[in-house]
Amino acid sequence: MSEDTRFGLGRTVTLPGPLRLDGGGSLAPVEIAYETYGTLAPDASNAILVCHALTGDQHVASEHPRTGKPGWWTRMVGPGKPIDTDRFCVICTNVLGSCMGSSGPASRNPATGTPYAMAFPVITIRDMVRAQAMLLDHLGIERLFAIVGGSMGGMQALSWTATYPDRVAAAVVIASTARHSAQNIAFHEVGRQAIMADPDWRDGNYYAADTTPSAGLAVARMAAHITYLSEAGLTEKFGRKLQGREAKTFGFDADFQVESYLRYQGLSFTDRFDANSYLYITRAMDYFDLAEEHGGMLANAFRSSRARFCVVSFDTDWLYPTAESRAVVRALNAAAAPASFVELSSPFGHDAFLLENAELARLVDGFLRAGDGK
Amino acid sequence: MSEDTRFGLGRTVTLPGPLRLDGGGSLAPVEIAYETYGTLAPDASNAILVCHALTGDQHVASEHPRTGKPGWWTRMVGPGKPIDTDRFCVICTNVLGSCMGSSGPASRNPATGTPYAMAFPVITIRDMVRAQAMLLDHLGIERLFAIVGGSMGGMQALSWTATYPDRVAAAVVIASTARHSAQNIAFHEVGRQAIMADPDWRDGNYYAADTTPSAGLAVARMAAHITYLSEAGLTEKFGRKLQGREAKTFGFDADFQVESYLRYQGLSFTDRFDANSYLYITRAMDYFDLAEEHGGMLANAFRSSRARFCVVSFDTDWLYPTAESRAVVRALNAAAAPASFVELSSPFGHDAFLLENAELARLVDGFLRAGDGK
Repeated sequence: MSEDTRFGLGRTVTLPGPLRLDGGGSLAPVEIAYETYGTLAPDASNAILVCHALTGDQHVASEHPRTGKPGWWTRMVGPGKPIDTDRFCVICTNVLGSCMGSSGPASRNPATGTPYAMAFPVITIRDMVRAQAMLLDHLGIERLFAIVGGSMGGMQALSWTATYPDRVAAAVVIASTARHSAQNIAFHEVGRQAIMADPDWRDGNYYAADTTPSAGLAVARMAAHITYLSEAGLTEKFGRKLQGREAKTFGFDADFQVESYLRYQGLSFTDRFDANSYLYITRAMDYFDLAEEHGGMLANAFRSSRARFCVVSFDTDWLYPTAESRAVVRALNAAAAPASFVELSSPFGHDAFLLENAELARLVDGFLRAGDGK
Repeated sequence: MSEDTRFGLGRTVTLPGPLRLDGGGSLAPVEIAYETYGTLAPDASNAILVCHALTGDQHVASEHPRTGKPGWWTRMVGPGKPIDTDRFCVICTNVLGSCMGSSGPASRNPATGTPYAMAFPVITIRDMVRAQAMLLDHLGIERLFAIVGGSMGGMQALSWTATYPDRVAAAVVIASTARHSAQNIAFHEVGRQAIMADPDWRDGNYYAADTTPSAGLAVARMAAHITYLSEAGLTEKFGRKLQGREAKTFGFDADFQVESYLRYQGLSFTDRFDANSYLYITRAMDYFDLAEEHGGMLANAFRSSRARFCVVSFDTDWLYPTAESRAVVRALNAAAAPASFVELSSPFGHDAFLLENAELARLVDGFLRAGDGK
């Protein structure tokens, strides 16, 4: 077991493994990149695990080393914030399969000495969760005060309560779902096909090449980005406004602001994300079906859980609409798990969980304080 | 002026033009491929123009020459059908910019003797309509008994009533909109970027090459296809069902039926459609904003119209939702144009207008009979 601080990637720990995987194989060694904020209590009772979304990272409340941007949830995590680092020790790990320091397709395959590429095993949300549990074991944290996540982070939170029912005291599940729908899978498949159609993908073996499948990855990101925003939000933000010009060009440049915005989102993404990781993580999300893992009945996933739940959806989120959260809450009720549910109003669609939202902040703050006795 | 019957492409007429274009230029000559069904009355009073959608063609009620499939709207057009070819002479033209015989980027550029490719002028929905009007002039049809179209066909129908207010007696506008929204533009932009990212696109100059940008075009089609279906429809049709296997493969094959379906939709599309045409027609749709063409007020578009209108939307259509149809109807009301509006229920989303729908059939039949006196 070794631990080091890599420049710009925060802390990384290499655990010997093996990590047993849902796909049948195992992974060893297991690298886990993570950040911590705040101080762990001597009895390790104040740990909160924050789980990131598809393209997120461990830098939840500190600067991203590659982009120089602030942490992705500084609104929620920090001193005096709802997830208060003056009281809690907040841990955020880069998920298995990703590209910010944790084991993924870009990692060195010990069998060959070169990057795994597509020889990396296909993983699941539960595999990500098992890797996180290995890290908590390493850090001496037996039980989480809380686990909090939005989008894919919420899937991890749900999977945690089902996989380690004794290790989670509270779970906050925001803008998430207990299973990927046909439409969710469809959008991810478009993204994967865009990447795989890029000749620079080279069946995944581009790490030593001069070029990466950035064009395909940009298209994948553009398609996904539409699903993160609401139709009304796009209309309010962009409508049919033209980009820095007075009239249409009658050409194929980005005439409309929304085109320019999407192209920027696509291009800037390729600077910070690995195309193969995008394939693996979208696959893990598509495979996610918590009910299926528990005999086809979602309530069964929660029968052993000792956690309190706070489930939050946004009214304009069409990626994981409120109906998905309601299905989770119905299952929690059926399993007699303590659960509160709120649908918040926001014009911003799925992205709302990452944006300023006073109600969300109050809600999470209150829910955590209820477990804190404060 | 010449007229010929090309094998498999129905009738094509070459009109001398020039066709004045919204982009400022003009096009000459203008080829228009079209089909007719039924017999034109001696006074030419029984002509109905049916307008096709983005990837449609003139073969509304007869076999597609390339795919061998039945016409795309045989449910609605034919002897004894709502658009009854025993009573009406139905005309359907391949839109300008397309690839089934009408002038488009694959057509021969008289200036060079080679295909236009990206030298083809960027066109608008109104340009398509002007080309159709040229054909009607050629056929000796002064006034349409009715114009009927779904999706982009509905945009043409709306544009007809605004551009040639004296030449349309009735208009049926189904699952359509008077302007493309930011989200509509965003999805089209993803498709265009997918095509342009394909190295086989070669800046549009692939007509003499061994390969075409089929991978990019397939991705574009896959993304668009999701918008044609409802979330509930996808869930009902596919859910999370696996494709011909009992368990997940933990790989990147099409495990889920919805993936397999989308891949098939993408691939089969590339056999019948030209990638550059896809760029041009999506651009025309994105540019469509009937209000903008009339001083920013949609009602102004209809003030001179002498047509009766029948506007139909589907409750699960999220591409052109009912709100868009309501906006059209409000403008028609403000312009004192006779208009009826119905929102039909269907689980099939935008695609509903192409599918069996007894209510739609009754509605169109009744609307046309009201003008017929029968």
